[in-house]
Amino acid sequence: MSRSERSEFQLIDWIAQQAGPASPDLTLGIGDDCAVLKPITAATIVCKDVLAEGVHFTRETPLNLVGRKALAVNLSDIAAMAAEPVAAFVGLVLPRSMSRAEIERLYTGIFEIAREWKVAIAGGDTNVWDGGLVVSVTMTGKSEKPPVTRSGAKPGDWLFVTGSLGGSLPSGRHLTFTPRIREALAIREVAEIHAMLDISDGIASDLFHMLGQSQVGAKLEAEAIPVHHDVDAMLPFESRLAHALNDGEDFELLLAVSAEDGERMLRNPPQSVQLFHIGEITAGSGVTLVVAGKEQPLPPGGYVHGG
Amino acid sequence: MSRSERSEFQLIDWIAQQAGPASPDLTLGIGDDCAVLKPITAATIVCKDVLAEGVHFTRETPLNLVGRKALAVNLSDIAAMAAEPVAAFVGLVLPRSMSRAEIERLYTGIFEIAREWKVAIAGGDTNVWDGGLVVSVTMTGKSEKPPVTRSGAKPGDWLFVTGSLGGSLPSGRHLTFTPRIREALAIREVAEIHAMLDISDGIASDLFHMLGQSQVGAKLEAEAIPVHHDVDAMLPFESRLAHALNDGEDFELLLAVSAEDGERMLRNPPQSVQLFHIGEITAGSGVTLVVAGKEQPLPPGGYVHGG
Repeated sequence: MSRSERSEFQLIDWIAQQAGPASPDLTLGIGDDCAVLKPITAATIVCKDVLAEGVHFTRETPLNLVGRKALAVNLSDIAAMAAEPVAAFVGLVLPRSMSRAEIERLYTGIFEIAREWKVAIAGGDTNVWDGGLVVSVTMTGKSEKPPVTRSGAKPGDWLFVTGSLGGSLPSGRHLTFTPRIREALAIREVAEIHAMLDISDGIASDLFHMLGQSQVGAKLEAEAIPVHHDVDAMLPFESRLAHALNDGEDFELLLAVSAEDGERMLRNPPQSVQLFHIGEITAGSGVTLVVAGKEQPLPPGGYVHGG
Repeated sequence: MSRSERSEFQLIDWIAQQAGPASPDLTLGIGDDCAVLKPITAATIVCKDVLAEGVHFTRETPLNLVGRKALAVNLSDIAAMAAEPVAAFVGLVLPRSMSRAEIERLYTGIFEIAREWKVAIAGGDTNVWDGGLVVSVTMTGKSEKPPVTRSGAKPGDWLFVTGSLGGSLPSGRHLTFTPRIREALAIREVAEIHAMLDISDGIASDLFHMLGQSQVGAKLEAEAIPVHHDVDAMLPFESRLAHALNDGEDFELLLAVSAEDGERMLRNPPQSVQLFHIGEITAGSGVTLVVAGKEQPLPPGGYVHGG
């Protein structure tokens, strides 16, 4: 065994210890060729998100927050199906220069958010190379009800978002956001969610995914779109709107429910769930943005000031 | 939508087309926040392997073979549990310099081996950065019987490998090997497999994983260890042995069965399965290597010539 192999084994032992006691959802966790999930009667859902240095974080990002984000973006995907997380699989490609302490800091961020959301770290793969840091996480989840897809939005549906948008990257919110799992489950208790996704690229991109898969269009009310306080309050309205629509990395949920369910939710919102009614689903295709009473098309991928 | 985002969408469309018709194992495949696997009564197993440029392949490796290997190493993990593959999730971090044709070549290798083994490409994540190529694959599998772990080897068990070892990296065999899924299932039909793993780092490393988890030792017969013809036939015996024990990337199975099952398998091997009886499990710990009638300890991680 080479020195690097020996230290890799010690790292795997440390990871297995930190991963904590066996999860009730796992028959077999870290340390074999594969993990084994207990059979569940519910649908098993799987998502995967890869974070790369210079794209989703920088060399200066605290490593515990890199680890946290790698799990959080997957938890956000699970939330977007109105499902519950079960197990995570962590693939790392580590720069050769990373110290053991730095690797542990990365994993500490992973374990903290895993404990918070009761996700078992069930396996993974760790490699060392001469390039930058890559963190690849695959997460499984479960849902007793059929998972909510992007494809069920219907003309007349109301569109909601679960929080304010914009300014996530410069403020660092993209590293510390709360995945909207509780919100998704709470909304599902009181409404039939026709379509849902999490906002990673910005509404101006992500809404088109829902519309394309549901084969519908949408109309958005600019004044109803909640702009996050991370966006400079001194900017003119249209600049603030552009940040809210385009910035992305918000990881709020965008969802469509019937007008009836929508009205009822606004009158009596699920406890500790923020809901902003930002527009409606329409027949046809494309997005109309209503700014100061005037309708204008919202091009896929970005609202342009005064466009 | 920026030009790069637009071309990413086109790539995802192309991938979804290439992924082919819906798999019977999937409720929902590429294109939503998560994939949804049909509920199965069997155990769901999950494995993950990450390949990185300069570690598992080079810039000169044909990209279709990089894609093939990324799936094949996971298929090999599934084989090591005596399970069957179901779905794969492909995470890519692509060098900014890669052309669309190169990306398609990479995916073509992925799709070819996926079709061969009836694995659905069910989702993934694609990113572009300034670094080297990283391919992260997570695979799910299923097994009606309890999956075979590394921890069930017992003193007196016979150790087998399913093929010849050594020389895989220089010959390129590590890019074109056949995952031993059929072999594992065929062996399981005729024997109770106490412990099994796939040989990725070389027996001299991997055997210790089985022994550690089973809390046993082993004795290997040097003359019984099959040396692959990729290893130079002109080398002295002990050099050839070192290649077979240390080189790794063989992706043959190493398994332990009772002496009774072992004898029966040797007399009447499962059809088209190669089986080499290379030693026995012993009480205690550590590995004894018998070379020309003389016993010597095999240190974890590597046989040293004349050691």
